[in-house]
Amino acid sequence: MSAITRHLPDGRLSRGVVHGNLVYVAGTTADQRARPIKDQTAEVLAKIDAVLAACGSDKSRILTATVYVADMRLKPGMDEAWLAWVDKANPPARATVETRLGTPDTLVEIMCIAAKS
Amino acid sequence: MSAITRHLPDGRLSRGVVHGNLVYVAGTTADQRARPIKDQTAEVLAKIDAVLAACGSDKSRILTATVYVADMRLKPGMDEAWLAWVDKANPPARATVETRLGTPDTLVEIMCIAAKS
Amino acid sequence: MSAITRHLPDGRLSRGVVHGNLVYVAGTTADQRARPIKDQTAEVLAKIDAVLAACGSDKSRILTATVYVADMRLKPGMDEAWLAWVDKANPPARATVETRLGTPDTLVEIMCIAAKS
Repeated sequence: MSAITRHLPDGRLSRGVVHGNLVYVAGTTADQRARPIKDQTAEVLAKIDAVLAACGSDKSRILTATVYVADMRLKPGMDEAWLAWVDKANPPARATVETRLGTPDTLVEIMCIAAKS
Repeated sequence: MSAITRHLPDGRLSRGVVHGNLVYVAGTTADQRARPIKDQTAEVLAKIDAVLAACGSDKSRILTATVYVADMRLKPGMDEAWLAWVDKANPPARATVETRLGTPDTLVEIMCIAAKS
Repeated sequence: MSAITRHLPDGRLSRGVVHGNLVYVAGTTADQRARPIKDQTAEVLAKIDAVLAACGSDKSRILTATVYVADMRLKPGMDEAWLAWVDKANPPARATVETRLGTPDTLVEIMCIAAKS
């Protein structure tokens, strides 16, 4: 049976899951939710960096990402933080859609799949 | 060419797809849609158990799950059924977002990827 | 380290990403956005065909697809174009949910994962 390693399981979900040469990162949101979407996105991306590092990957190895924004009019702020962060030579496949998120002040949530390094 | 096995293809979609050591489960909703979200979630999770079993996996091997709820205020009911079901030692990466679903009385839809056993 | 090939990276995202025997296709929308959802879906699916071909796969090898529609009442039009296109013997696992998309006239966006041929 192929091995699965779970990072920070809390009984309900894991922040990252490693199986074979793939890493699955949970939907990630910001803690500083009084902040605008650019700041929330930067915080989310820093959290994803930490999960990827713990799971043996990094942002240059992200394969696909789904970005949920609470209001599509805020997408430019998300994209600003994304562009400051993404490995421009190695960007993932990505979709951005508008959904309501866990709390009314959660402006962005990002989920991704990466390759292990 | 790597083999793909499709479970219950209906000409439009398959309920589960097996490729290599991964199982992809279709977005799954409840049939008993007059019921509250907790019951709908329990029904969805039982259906997912059945697809995973048919595809050679089980809930302890789910890698990532996306949970769509029709109204985020109903998330606690979804989580109650989720917590009663999930393998607490082996929870998947998960995201929960609010979207409208296939019918107005569809309160929850869950899609996931699992490792074969 | 396992190799990753990125198709049409634009500094922000890639249209397709190949890793191992899997192909990740970005969220894909239509350019002809004055058209009804059936036409937009047909355009999206033709674009996905092109990305899959460039990445060494094809529609008969799609494993899972997420379909975002801007209004669930338009789903029948999306499904009409989908049914005219999908390999009926080899349909993917699929979920369809309603979300706002990148522009108000974007009626459908599709993201998928396929197996390489």
